[in-house]
Amino acid sequence: MTMLTRSEVAAILGRQDNLYILTHRRPDGDTVGSAAALCRGLRQLGKNAWVAENPEISEKYRPFVLGLTKPEPGEEDYILSVDTASPGMLAYAFERFAGQIRLTIDHHASSTPTAPQALIDSTAAATGEIICDLLVELGVKLDKALAEALYLAVSTDTGCFRYANTTAHTLAVAAECVAAGADIYPINQAMFETNSLAKLRLQGWMVENTRFFKEKTVALCSIPQRVIQELGATEDDTESITNFLRNIEGVCLAATLREVPQGGVKLSVRAVPGFDAGALCARFGGGGHKGAAGATLYCPPEEAARRVAEAMLADA
Amino acid sequence: MTMLTRSEVAAILGRQDNLYILTHRRPDGDTVGSAAALCRGLRQLGKNAWVAENPEISEKYRPFVLGLTKPEPGEEDYILSVDTASPGMLAYAFERFAGQIRLTIDHHASSTPTAPQALIDSTAAATGEIICDLLVELGVKLDKALAEALYLAVSTDTGCFRYANTTAHTLAVAAECVAAGADIYPINQAMFETNSLAKLRLQGWMVENTRFFKEKTVALCSIPQRVIQELGATEDDTESITNFLRNIEGVCLAATLREVPQGGVKLSVRAVPGFDAGALCARFGGGGHKGAAGATLYCPPEEAARRVAEAMLADA
Repeated sequence: MTMLTRSEVAAILGRQDNLYILTHRRPDGDTVGSAAALCRGLRQLGKNAWVAENPEISEKYRPFVLGLTKPEPGEEDYILSVDTASPGMLAYAFERFAGQIRLTIDHHASSTPTAPQALIDSTAAATGEIICDLLVELGVKLDKALAEALYLAVSTDTGCFRYANTTAHTLAVAAECVAAGADIYPINQAMFETNSLAKLRLQGWMVENTRFFKEKTVALCSIPQRVIQELGATEDDTESITNFLRNIEGVCLAATLREVPQGGVKLSVRAVPGFDAGALCARFGGGGHKGAAGATLYCPPEEAARRVAEAMLADA
Repeated sequence: MTMLTRSEVAAILGRQDNLYILTHRRPDGDTVGSAAALCRGLRQLGKNAWVAENPEISEKYRPFVLGLTKPEPGEEDYILSVDTASPGMLAYAFERFAGQIRLTIDHHASSTPTAPQALIDSTAAATGEIICDLLVELGVKLDKALAEALYLAVSTDTGCFRYANTTAHTLAVAAECVAAGADIYPINQAMFETNSLAKLRLQGWMVENTRFFKEKTVALCSIPQRVIQELGATEDDTESITNFLRNIEGVCLAATLREVPQGGVKLSVRAVPGFDAGALCARFGGGGHKGAAGATLYCPPEEAARRVAEAMLADA
């Protein structure tokens, strides 16, 4: 596998006339926005570029690839993937292309390239930042639709510029998108401000059913499967529930325990700097980073809650 | 009153040796951050600059003015105000300076200057953006503390770049702050991610006690004073409760009714584009914009709720 620079990749893309861009499974704003922006940029250069139709792309991201998707590659198509950390992360529909991918463009630190040639920059908060640099190198002029796709990519991967991965370059790309005509307010509303009623009801339930320890610096919430079902909460709704607890004023160490339908109790931990979520989860055979970690406990939920509470009080 | 350009104001500031900077009442991140950044920039140029001690500045903004404040101006001090839309908006402690203010720097569209000379740019999302331009014009080099103060200003006045007022210039200023060494993650956490337990409990109560109409496109929540007191919610906690309702998936028109301790029921309305919060509130003697408006009803809360529900159903 060969690592390439931005200039080398720009040169390769410049030589291709037919391109077919793959996204990853459980597609997020970065993979969809990066693919859409790259596709639009290549079309502006007169190329025959397409985003591979990925049936997993959700309704809220669909407008960004409208008119850009194609179900099958042409015989002469140069196939590349964006934001896809490993072959196992390819969208399910694209597993059949595994051996045919020529190039991958990605920003994941632990990237196992899906292709013999790769441009990987883990200092980029989003793959969209790399795409922006490539398009500038190729002489593409950002227009409204292209800029909105790029904005989707860089804003969603940084929690709208709030996460620790946000850099000056991320914000500069966002500024260029707005300067190029991107209407970012509706995107911000749809991606960051709107909450489902089920998610808010789950959060309301959590606030009333979380146990706080040590002057409310430690928070632990056990969520029975029954509650999630009764509230009609989806996977999306439960995605950030541990962050929700960590973001309560004064909380330094937050954990949720959630029964998994397949069996076991899923532990998720978030910590502010100075605390170690990874060390806590390691006690239960799990792992992760200091700020965020997880584990699965195989015992009744009540016992899991008791063991985790003990461990949290020992650590905090 | 004379309107000045950025260059003219930079020249005036360049000529002064002793400066005393005033902030507005109920100080927000923009007034505090603008004052702190301007003060640091002027000190870098060798001037004797101070931020006027404003006792209303809350704990979370205090670190930004640490070492910069002075209780009284010196006799030779040139007094100026930042982000202060009118003499009536001066911090209470500064009303005594009303006739002595020489210059005001502001971004409010409906600004009634507090001084004979003014730099007012209502295209700026935050006064911090104007301060950044001035500092660049004065040849100031952003350092970490200065950049963090500027970032506080531009991020808080735009809801961390999510509000409709955010421009390419806003994001470019933020990018410059990060490039200059601003550590923005802790600021984002403290200003935007952290919620008080009382606020979350109030939101939880609202989710369970809001009435939805017209296929959940219209939401109305009456909040008794008793509930706010029981949950220990402060003014800060109740500030954005109507936005909270409007941001529920599918909601187009959202209203809260809140008993005011002084008597009356405070109506607050938020609407998505296509609906008119101002017109709705005008029916009750209030007003505002299409997106956000308010009114006060003088009748029992139950009657207020009935009348507002009828009006919302007629409008939506």
